[in-house]
Amino acid sequence: MKEFDTIAAVATAMGEGGISIIRISGDNVLNIVSKIFKSKSEKSIFDIKTYTMRYGHIVDINTEEVIDEVIISFMKGPRSFTAEDTVEINCHGGVTSTNRVLQEVIKAGARLAEPGEFTKRAFLNGRIDLSQAEAVIDIIRSKTELSMKSAMIQSQGKLSQEINILRERLLNVLALIEYAVDFTEDDEEPDESIPIRVGEGLSYVISQINSLLQNADEGKLIREGLSMVIVGKPNVGKSSLLNALLMEQRAIVTDIPGTTRDVIEEYISLDGIPVKIVDTAGIRETEDVVEKIGVERSKEKINEADLIVFMLDMSRMLDEEDKEIIQFIKNKKYIVLLNKVDLERKFSLEAIKDLENTIEISARTGFGIDDLKEKIKELFFNGKIDTESMMVTNTRHKQALYRAKENCEIAVEKVSSNEFLDLISIYVTSGLRALGEITGAELEEDLVNKIFSEFCVGK
Amino acid sequence: MKEFDTIAAVATAMGEGGISIIRISGDNVLNIVSKIFKSKSEKSIFDIKTYTMRYGHIVDINTEEVIDEVIISFMKGPRSFTAEDTVEINCHGGVTSTNRVLQEVIKAGARLAEPGEFTKRAFLNGRIDLSQAEAVIDIIRSKTELSMKSAMIQSQGKLSQEINILRERLLNVLALIEYAVDFTEDDEEPDESIPIRVGEGLSYVISQINSLLQNADEGKLIREGLSMVIVGKPNVGKSSLLNALLMEQRAIVTDIPGTTRDVIEEYISLDGIPVKIVDTAGIRETEDVVEKIGVERSKEKINEADLIVFMLDMSRMLDEEDKEIIQFIKNKKYIVLLNKVDLERKFSLEAIKDLENTIEISARTGFGIDDLKEKIKELFFNGKIDTESMMVTNTRHKQALYRAKENCEIAVEKVSSNEFLDLISIYVTSGLRALGEITGAELEEDLVNKIFSEFCVGK
Repeated sequence: MKEFDTIAAVATAMGEGGISIIRISGDNVLNIVSKIFKSKSEKSIFDIKTYTMRYGHIVDINTEEVIDEVIISFMKGPRSFTAEDTVEINCHGGVTSTNRVLQEVIKAGARLAEPGEFTKRAFLNGRIDLSQAEAVIDIIRSKTELSMKSAMIQSQGKLSQEINILRERLLNVLALIEYAVDFTEDDEEPDESIPIRVGEGLSYVISQINSLLQNADEGKLIREGLSMVIVGKPNVGKSSLLNALLMEQRAIVTDIPGTTRDVIEEYISLDGIPVKIVDTAGIRETEDVVEKIGVERSKEKINEADLIVFMLDMSRMLDEEDKEIIQFIKNKKYIVLLNKVDLERKFSLEAIKDLENTIEISARTGFGIDDLKEKIKELFFNGKIDTESMMVTNTRHKQALYRAKENCEIAVEKVSSNEFLDLISIYVTSGLRALGEITGAELEEDLVNKIFSEFCVGK
Repeated sequence: MKEFDTIAAVATAMGEGGISIIRISGDNVLNIVSKIFKSKSEKSIFDIKTYTMRYGHIVDINTEEVIDEVIISFMKGPRSFTAEDTVEINCHGGVTSTNRVLQEVIKAGARLAEPGEFTKRAFLNGRIDLSQAEAVIDIIRSKTELSMKSAMIQSQGKLSQEINILRERLLNVLALIEYAVDFTEDDEEPDESIPIRVGEGLSYVISQINSLLQNADEGKLIREGLSMVIVGKPNVGKSSLLNALLMEQRAIVTDIPGTTRDVIEEYISLDGIPVKIVDTAGIRETEDVVEKIGVERSKEKINEADLIVFMLDMSRMLDEEDKEIIQFIKNKKYIVLLNKVDLERKFSLEAIKDLENTIEISARTGFGIDDLKEKIKELFFNGKIDTESMMVTNTRHKQALYRAKENCEIAVEKVSSNEFLDLISIYVTSGLRALGEITGAELEEDLVNKIFSEFCVGK
C-alpha cells in the first residue's frame, strides 16, 4: 500500500437530513480523530477495533466545547473503501452542523479531499481497478434501476475479468513472438507453427472484443440515457404525450415519499431505459416547440437526439410544415405517432406511406403508449433488454476496445502477409495497452486525474 | 420500553452523494434485515454485536439478485437514537440506489417512517424529552454556528433541567396545600406558616421563569433568525450593502468546498446571528425595491421585519419619499445608514436630527459595516451575545412559560387575599402542567403529533 496524507470530506449529499457522514481516510486518521472526539465511554480511540463504532462528541480542538453529538465508525485498512484506515463520523444532518464538524476535522490535521479522491485511493491502493472505480460513480448517478444494475455488474469486476482474460491471451501471443524471435537470432530454424498460433490467438481476441462491442451502444443508452425529442405542430398533443409518459414515472417514484423528484424528473424510465426528453421545459411551457424555437432550431434538436418522435394529428390535414419535417427525419431514427385516432380522420395513411414505425395512439387516453415503448425497445435493443450481456456502457471503454481491435486486426493482417514477427509485436503491444487502459493496468496519470475529477466530492 | 412496529426511511439528505443511510428501527429489525442482507463473511446477522458493522450486499428479496454493496451497522436498544434496536444501511448515494435499497427494506417488512418518527420514538421511549427532541431539528436547521450551539445546549437537556427543578418546586407547593387541606378537613387548626411557604415557593418559581424569559426574544432570534428589510430610494446603494454583507458570509462558507450554498444563502451570518434579508431577490434584481413594489407594499414588508435598515444617499437631497419613510419607521426598530459618505454631502444632518441609530457608511468600500453589526447587536442583544443564558429559543416554550407564570401569579395573588387553598391549587396545577408541556411530561397527543410532523422524513 502506498502512503498518502489523510483526507476528509462530507460523503453524503448536502442538504437537510437526519444524518451526515464525514469520511476521513489515511494513515493518520486515528491520531486526527483523537484530537476532536470525546468518547462517552472515555475509552481511548486508539483501542477501537475495526468495524466497530463509538458514541460521543466532536469538540472544538482548542476550547473543548461540544460541537456535535456523533457516532464514529472505524474501518482498518485494507478492509475499507479506500483500503486505508478510515473513520466515518455520523453527525447531525444539515448544512451548518456538517460543515462545522468538517471544519474541526480539517483543523485537526486532515486535508480536504478532492472530488473522487476516496475512490481514486481505492484504485491506487489496488482494491478496485479503474473500470470498477468508474462504476461507483455510475451507480450514484444512475437514472433507473436498470442503469444501476448495469453499473453494479461493472463494479463487481465482470468487465475487468473479461478484459484480463484477453490481456493474458495477448501476453501469450507476445511470448510466442519473443520465443520465435530468439530462435531466429540464434540462427536456428523457427517453429513454423508459431505464425499460425499467433494468428489464432489474435483472432480469438478480436472475436471476443467484437462480442463485447456488440451491445456497447445499448450499454451506453442504459448508462447515459436515450435522448428523445418530440416534434410536431402546435396542439398536436405533445404535452399530453409527455404527461402520459410522466404518469408512468410518477407511479414508480411517488410510492417512496421524501425523495426529491427534481433529480430524476428530467429522465423518464421506459422499462428501465432512462429517456431524456430534450427541451421538456419548452414543451411544457408551450404546446408549440416548433413555432417557438423555429424550424431551424428544431432541426438542431433533432440532430442531437437519439430518437425523434414525430407527432401527427389525424384529425387535421397534413400541411407543408409536416412535409418538411418528414423529409428531414427520413434518414434518422424516428417513430411517427398518429395521435387523436379517436377523432375523425382527416388525412389518409397513403400520404405517409413512405414513413416507417408509425403507431396509432391517443395521448389523451393513453391508448398506444405501450406500443410506443415496445417500438423504442425494438429500435434500440432488438426488442429485449439483457443487462448481463451489456458489459460495455462507457464510451471511454468502447473507444479503448476499438483501438485494441484495430491493432489486433493489423497484426493479423501482417501475420498473413508473413511480415517480421517483431514488427507484429508492436501492434500486439499497442492492443494490450489499449485493453489495459480500461482496467487501469496501463494508464497515463493525466487520464486518471481527469477521470476522478469528474466524481463528486466525498466519493 | 413500549412496543412499536419497525420503521425505515432514508436518513441522509437526498441528492448525489457518495453514501446514503437507510435507518431501520424496531423490535423486528434484525429479522427484516436478515431477509435482504448477505454478509460477505457469511456470518448470521442475528449474531451481530451492538455497535459493530458488517460488510455485504443488499439482495432482492425474491430473486436474491445483488442490488447494492453496503455496510450495515447495528445499535441494540436502548443504546440507539430511538432507544430501539436499530440497523443503519450505508449504501451508495444517489437517488436510484438509495430508493432501490429502501424499497427492498419495505418489501422485507418495515413500514415507511413518517416525518420525525425516529425522534418521536426516542421521546416516547423516554430517551430524550420533548424539548431535547425539538432541539434535534433545530440543530439540523440551524443557520449559523451560534444557532447550532444554542440548539446543542438545548439538546443536552439544559432547559429541561431548569424546568424540572421548577416543576418539583410547584409539586412541593401542591403537597403543602394538600397537607393543609387535610388538616382543615380533620377540623384541626391549620399550620399558619403554610400560606407563607406556598407564597414563597410560587414567588421563587415566578422569578426563575422571569429570568428564563429574559433572553427569550434573543433566543428566538438566534434560532429563527432576525428578519431585516433594507429600504431606500433607487440607487441609494442597497445592492452594494447586500454584497458587502454577503461577502463576509462567503468568506465563511467558501473555504469549505462541495457545500451547497443555496441552503444558507438566504441567511447572512452577522457574528453568528442568522439574518434573513427580506425580499433579497427583489433587491438583487432591481436596485429599486420601493419603486418596484410600491410604497404600500414596502410598508407591509417593514411591518413584518424585526429590523428596518433605511438607507439614505448623502450625495443627494432628501425628498418627500424619504420623509414619508422616516415618518413611517419612527416607531419601529430601525437603523439609518448614511451611505456614500465618501462623496460630497448634499444634505445636512440637521434634516434627520430626530432619527436615532444613524451610521455613516460606504457600502462600496465597506466602511462602516462593522458599526452596523455592532448596532444590530446593541439593539437586539444589549451589545453582547451570550448563548449560555439563552435557554429559551422556541416560541412554543416561551408561550408555555408565560402561561405557567400567569397561573403562578394568580395563585400568589389569591394567597395574599387569603382565598381557600384548594382554589389556589387549581392555578398551581395549571402552572405545573404548562411547564410539563415544555419537556413533554404533560402533553396532549395531538400536540406531540403536530410537533413531530414538522420534522423531515428520516429524522
